[in-house]
Amino acid sequence: MMTRFTLYGSPDSLPTYKVALMLRLSGEAFSFRYVSFQKGMHKTPEFLANSRWGQVPVLIDRECTHVQSAAIIEHLAEALGRFQGSDPATRQAVREWLYWDVDALFPPIFNCYGVQLGQRKLLPISVEPAIADYHRRRAEAALSVLDSYLVHRDYLCAAEPTIADICCFGDVAFAEICEFDLRRWPNAAEWAERVKSLPGFKAPFELLAMADAEFI
Amino acid sequence: MMTRFTLYGSPDSLPTYKVALMLRLSGEAFSFRYVSFQKGMHKTPEFLANSRWGQVPVLIDRECTHVQSAAIIEHLAEALGRFQGSDPATRQAVREWLYWDVDALFPPIFNCYGVQLGQRKLLPISVEPAIADYHRRRAEAALSVLDSYLVHRDYLCAAEPTIADICCFGDVAFAEICEFDLRRWPNAAEWAERVKSLPGFKAPFELLAMADAEFI
Repeated sequence: MMTRFTLYGSPDSLPTYKVALMLRLSGEAFSFRYVSFQKGMHKTPEFLANSRWGQVPVLIDRECTHVQSAAIIEHLAEALGRFQGSDPATRQAVREWLYWDVDALFPPIFNCYGVQLGQRKLLPISVEPAIADYHRRRAEAALSVLDSYLVHRDYLCAAEPTIADICCFGDVAFAEICEFDLRRWPNAAEWAERVKSLPGFKAPFELLAMADAEFI
Repeated sequence: MMTRFTLYGSPDSLPTYKVALMLRLSGEAFSFRYVSFQKGMHKTPEFLANSRWGQVPVLIDRECTHVQSAAIIEHLAEALGRFQGSDPATRQAVREWLYWDVDALFPPIFNCYGVQLGQRKLLPISVEPAIADYHRRRAEAALSVLDSYLVHRDYLCAAEPTIADICCFGDVAFAEICEFDLRRWPNAAEWAERVKSLPGFKAPFELLAMADAEFI
């Protein structure tokens, strides 16, 4: 049986996790196709034909190809009617948080994880200590912003979770993998627990492995 | 007479320029309220009450407050019916480019401009040479991606300009201010000339000055 959605990506790709988590929390079946960086699969002509910037994830929704995780997740929210926010003001706040995420939270954590992959010799990356430290300080600053905002709130944009929570949570999950101690940001930690208790939730490496898979 | 739109920001803020350019190219009147970083105006309680992350720009549209330049510009595109792209596939491509911009093109150029403001003693910023160089290399890489994509295209997502062009153009305009020589990226340079010839266009410091202003 053909599933509607095919997700190309890697368990080591933070943005791939965000899209996979959105599909899981929405209860959608999907096919996962593992793109191995180590094997250079993201540089093959087949992959590049689908990925405008040569990046994972790529989501195929029927015949349409989608890239950029936040854009994919916005598309899914609209197409499935899930986690959108219930009114125009909430949906505009969701957009603002998605851009804040891509601006402030995602980049330093993505880069910290890249530093870790380099240290574990899983990627041929060697980052200068000054730059690694720069990413770490920026991640801490963004986690503090998130934490302050969540003092009196269950979720970022509404009483219910939206795709803003799903996207920001993906980063926080990888921050934990990068050994940021969430106890320093107790409101963000409680919010993360709320996301973890949503039906269908799976942590990054419980959700995706380095192999093709069918999620039914 | 009250205008519908009030834009809070600074001519030295790249994201402020993007929103001001969108308003200009859409032929919309707006009030500009200068927020001086040097005077710490972005840290006043009045400003912080409107700006969730303490950042410019902020756009007031009637009673609603909007932040994050790309989210503001998406709101304007929808509210005014301008530069959206004419069909769902184009609008999804626009989203992808907006996120690519915030991910790859905007941050290094924003940071290069910050380095320049620090060197000119206009901001109390002193960036380590390794980090300044990192930003510069990332900006060059992103300009190369933009240039390659524009080899056979007039605009990024359609035959006509969209907000993806407006947002990416804002960065390219500031790259020129940061002394990136656009002749190295001839397709991007030609595309930039096309944007500059749109009705209502103004370059960054021709459009906004360090003073409140009414654009009618």
